[in-house]
Amino acid sequence: MGTLFRENIERMAGYTPGEQPSSGASIVKLNTNENPYPPSPKVAEALKNFDPAGLRLYPDPMGSEFRAAASMEHGVDLENVIVGNGSDDILTIATRCFVPEGGKMACPSPSYTLYRTLAAIQGAACVEIPLAADFSLPDDFAEQAEGASLLMLPRPNAPTGTAFAKDAVKRLCARFNGVVLIDEAYVEFADDNCLDLALECGNVVVGRTLSKSHSLAGLRLGYAIASNEIVSGMMKVKDSYNVNAISQRLGAVALGDSEWLAKNIARVRESRAKLISGLLALGFDVPESHANFVLASPPDGDAQRIYMRLRDEGVLVRWFDEERVRNYIRVTVGTANEIDFLLEALTRLVPQGERK
Amino acid sequence: MGTLFRENIERMAGYTPGEQPSSGASIVKLNTNENPYPPSPKVAEALKNFDPAGLRLYPDPMGSEFRAAASMEHGVDLENVIVGNGSDDILTIATRCFVPEGGKMACPSPSYTLYRTLAAIQGAACVEIPLAADFSLPDDFAEQAEGASLLMLPRPNAPTGTAFAKDAVKRLCARFNGVVLIDEAYVEFADDNCLDLALECGNVVVGRTLSKSHSLAGLRLGYAIASNEIVSGMMKVKDSYNVNAISQRLGAVALGDSEWLAKNIARVRESRAKLISGLLALGFDVPESHANFVLASPPDGDAQRIYMRLRDEGVLVRWFDEERVRNYIRVTVGTANEIDFLLEALTRLVPQGERK
Repeated sequence: MGTLFRENIERMAGYTPGEQPSSGASIVKLNTNENPYPPSPKVAEALKNFDPAGLRLYPDPMGSEFRAAASMEHGVDLENVIVGNGSDDILTIATRCFVPEGGKMACPSPSYTLYRTLAAIQGAACVEIPLAADFSLPDDFAEQAEGASLLMLPRPNAPTGTAFAKDAVKRLCARFNGVVLIDEAYVEFADDNCLDLALECGNVVVGRTLSKSHSLAGLRLGYAIASNEIVSGMMKVKDSYNVNAISQRLGAVALGDSEWLAKNIARVRESRAKLISGLLALGFDVPESHANFVLASPPDGDAQRIYMRLRDEGVLVRWFDEERVRNYIRVTVGTANEIDFLLEALTRLVPQGERK
Repeated sequence: MGTLFRENIERMAGYTPGEQPSSGASIVKLNTNENPYPPSPKVAEALKNFDPAGLRLYPDPMGSEFRAAASMEHGVDLENVIVGNGSDDILTIATRCFVPEGGKMACPSPSYTLYRTLAAIQGAACVEIPLAADFSLPDDFAEQAEGASLLMLPRPNAPTGTAFAKDAVKRLCARFNGVVLIDEAYVEFADDNCLDLALECGNVVVGRTLSKSHSLAGLRLGYAIASNEIVSGMMKVKDSYNVNAISQRLGAVALGDSEWLAKNIARVRESRAKLISGLLALGFDVPESHANFVLASPPDGDAQRIYMRLRDEGVLVRWFDEERVRNYIRVTVGTANEIDFLLEALTRLVPQGERK
């Protein structure tokens, strides 16, 4: 019966998300870049006050309440905002808008492996452009991306945690002929963002999510900011009811609580500094992180061993069997206690002689 | 900048969902086939008990709790169930799995106009096969569908409310070379269903939703039942986190409360009978409805006038400017009071001389 599927679907493997242990398990979970702190108390309040009787009605297809909150937060027009069922939905919508079957998407390598999966589902090629040794954009990136109709550009990048220089990104957007989707899933943990490019350049979409910064991965809520023209085209591909009524409500409330956001971001950045200095002391190689996770290579480069041994000790981190990052583990920035627990385990796992 | 989009996206119009008046408006809303009764009290309870702190974590990508509930409810294996962000998500996943760009989807006409939109997004043709005068399947339906790789077959059909004879559907599934998606969005209001075909035939997917029957349109929760092979292929195209944590939890609870479902279905069927007899008494032509809505043509055939006048009187019904159904309004089965209100308004709008 295999022939029922399109050939590209038949051939491809699905995307493998990070492990989600059953909620009963006692585990330090530092593998899927979740925020260690709960969402805003105002979100909890809004959830408590949500009238279940209202669920019998379809949600607002435009997501107006959420769009208004995002528009207020970022000082853009309502028409510059489109809501997604998580920012992965935004990536899917963009792929379906801009990449034909048999066409080309481009992305840096290493980066978020979902881009590759989205191209495969579309039946398109994914041109993976190698980053420089320090994970920065090579000078000829635009040339290498030529012929692609969509460029996925995560900033900060995952799984490296690094952020491409903003002026290099700006030049790239000007030189690239297709659409550039700047995937800012982690941007709230960084020092700057590219929102201005979404409004200045006619070919730029900036993707955002409430999963990490607002501790709402379970709610599935993302959005994109782009020109009116791009947003109204993407609206044709967006499922009318892609975001449910509860997520729309809670998401609007979460975006409005910038005080809680700032407090949480500060806590995560503080733990990140602590994690990085601990890893460096143990002799790990650590690229500069602008995200809520850290990429780290052990002194002997055997990251798979560290990943497995941490697992045995009840700490889940992520290891990718992928070129360029095979020697690294990716560690989500957890609470201060979780970082202590991890660093203690690593102290036992990394031979003293190998430390710097 | 128009050329940034794929040509098929540039050319198409988006899907137009039924109007969602702002919640403050005092309106009798019989336009989008929502259930007039609230969801199960157990759903309300589960919502109240949902721990907002858990929202910081990603939801289960497999939807295991919900799959288990569906598997229990329908007596199928877990591997026969895939969850969707509403059953529209299931329709999208199937389109992306089975219909290549430049390929063909088939569906009856008139039927759910979203099928046409999904084919357009995919860059595929949509072969709309005219139903017989009584909205049944014409004998040569399979021949007309030939060459399509996916056939969307809503049963009960929308917007007609009619149900194709099951033996005709079974023969069609056996004769059609591609995948048949039997869209059972309204099946709980009908006398029988086609779940057995999903398990017996290797090319059948049955789509379900909790939007109508379980009063959970606002939650976005649908699912499909099919062979292990089809489900595991569709899993590759499904977004890993397509259904949020709250919807998974509440959906599982809703599916488990079959008592509430039965009670609600009985109430809707009772109101449907009342609505139909009222419409017939006013001289409307009413095809036999197996859904939670009724298609009805006024004596003079001027359905648009009725639609507009009802709107003036604060009653929203649906009117489609589409061949074959232009002379009909589609009325969602509301509460007994809403039906009374509608029938009173219609009594004023339909000249006495025209009534049967």
